[in-house]
Amino acid sequence: MNYDYDVIILGAGAAGMTASIYTSRFKLKNLLIGDILGGTTTEAHKIFNWPGEPGISGFELMNKMSAHVKDSGGEIMSDTVIDIVKEADGFSIKTKSNKVITAKRLIITAGTKHRRLNLPREEELAGRGVSYCATCDALFFQNKRVALTGGGNSVISASLYLADIAEKVFVICRGVALKGEPLWREELLKRSNVTLIYNTNITRLIGQEKLEALELDQEYDGSNTLAVDGLFVEIGLVPQSDLAKKLGATIDEFGYILVNKDMSTNIEGLYAAGDSTNASNNFHQIVTACGEAAVAAESVYRSLSIAKQ
Amino acid sequence: MNYDYDVIILGAGAAGMTASIYTSRFKLKNLLIGDILGGTTTEAHKIFNWPGEPGISGFELMNKMSAHVKDSGGEIMSDTVIDIVKEADGFSIKTKSNKVITAKRLIITAGTKHRRLNLPREEELAGRGVSYCATCDALFFQNKRVALTGGGNSVISASLYLADIAEKVFVICRGVALKGEPLWREELLKRSNVTLIYNTNITRLIGQEKLEALELDQEYDGSNTLAVDGLFVEIGLVPQSDLAKKLGATIDEFGYILVNKDMSTNIEGLYAAGDSTNASNNFHQIVTACGEAAVAAESVYRSLSIAKQ
Repeated sequence: MNYDYDVIILGAGAAGMTASIYTSRFKLKNLLIGDILGGTTTEAHKIFNWPGEPGISGFELMNKMSAHVKDSGGEIMSDTVIDIVKEADGFSIKTKSNKVITAKRLIITAGTKHRRLNLPREEELAGRGVSYCATCDALFFQNKRVALTGGGNSVISASLYLADIAEKVFVICRGVALKGEPLWREELLKRSNVTLIYNTNITRLIGQEKLEALELDQEYDGSNTLAVDGLFVEIGLVPQSDLAKKLGATIDEFGYILVNKDMSTNIEGLYAAGDSTNASNNFHQIVTACGEAAVAAESVYRSLSIAKQ
Repeated sequence: MNYDYDVIILGAGAAGMTASIYTSRFKLKNLLIGDILGGTTTEAHKIFNWPGEPGISGFELMNKMSAHVKDSGGEIMSDTVIDIVKEADGFSIKTKSNKVITAKRLIITAGTKHRRLNLPREEELAGRGVSYCATCDALFFQNKRVALTGGGNSVISASLYLADIAEKVFVICRGVALKGEPLWREELLKRSNVTLIYNTNITRLIGQEKLEALELDQEYDGSNTLAVDGLFVEIGLVPQSDLAKKLGATIDEFGYILVNKDMSTNIEGLYAAGDSTNASNNFHQIVTACGEAAVAAESVYRSLSIAKQ
């Protein structure tokens, strides 16, 4: 069988970009497909731990990476993969725009998506007050009242960003304290327009055309209703492992794709790297995702070199 | 016992810098000690696979990283660690300049050093024609005749660099072909002033005050003597695992420190990351070293958080 590519990389975030850069250096014909160019990194308004860049926006970093991909000879396609089939010694994928493309190897770098609260009318109100991306939507709430919910770094980082934009920021946390990097936490406590509400869950989204208030399971300031113009949901991420699962890859109880040391999966020819895997001790960072992608690319190169002999 | 630091990071290359940046973000008091600021990365005249930088010098990249370390609040000390002792629940190190410094945790990011040919008079002629770093020394050989020896990416990359500077470049390879990235190899074959000599070993370094010629175990151009002004030795790297070994860490047959998924070693409180370890499937890259260092930093943070409780 003739394949269109040596390797297709599914997911155009930091891991996918790095896999493309590395496979290009190995002179493998590679195609990077993703629905969001830059992946979730593009949503970060400020990144402080990408080595060498003390404070770069996610958008800028991913712009640099995608320029690097093209500079190295990699192709990028903006599309969604809707089906995936194992061929004799390769794979074929089908995209939303009805393209069928084949490759000898696959690297899944699909990353994660934002977890939903799973409240009634949540999807309806998404984009009408309910948001999962502070960097994308914060500016709609200039001088307004917003709430955020979550318990870790993402909610802290988003709250800091919104504290500079909104008039008033409520952080609703179901636990007794915020987790996350101490430096972020300290910074948040300094902000005078931020109020932390602990031990509290959101039980209902109130509003017709747009979000108007939240119903809480604990009283705050004498009421179970908190009037807000916006709600940012930062309660974690769900690994995008459906395509891997379709091919029979082993997935752990949290939905992460299980990878070996060389980033191979239990399915021959299928590799994975980045936030959708259990690699790097489950410490999901841009730099760990990129490191894993480099390893995956080398493993693909090795396996194709052996296949040629 | 009172410790001077939460964590000391041994080795100031890309892994060490990243470990510092991450431990600073975790608000751990950290000290980065190394004899070569920037590590072996500084020797790379051009790096094409650091994501987002399509062609940056090693020197520039490491300058950016060390600025980032300082910006994040990490301390850098230029010194050599000559002794290391396990304390009750931490470590103490002794440096060449006679400082004794203690820390609760150690991360070894000591990287690798260049392998020697182990020929008589090799150390004597080092710096007098014999070099282990093309980026450092190439400019001494403008319009001169140089040889390089090795078989992989390093010798190819160094040969390309020297081809632009020297009059004539000989690449002496003991195998039948060069290994390494196909893109590098192709590029080298295009250069008209580069001659590849296969199946050949250097058996003697000839010259009194400085290197004048090489004795080869195979005839080249009718002679076993090849007159050159310089020799660049690019025959691989030796992991710097002596300090880890001194503490009782398990080292594999090639000298790499064995690490677990969280970058811990078999010695409590001792972590390692980067080229001196067997992590990332032994694919030693700047980006894999940095990814490992991020994981090590998080593991140190976790272990200290638990210790506090």
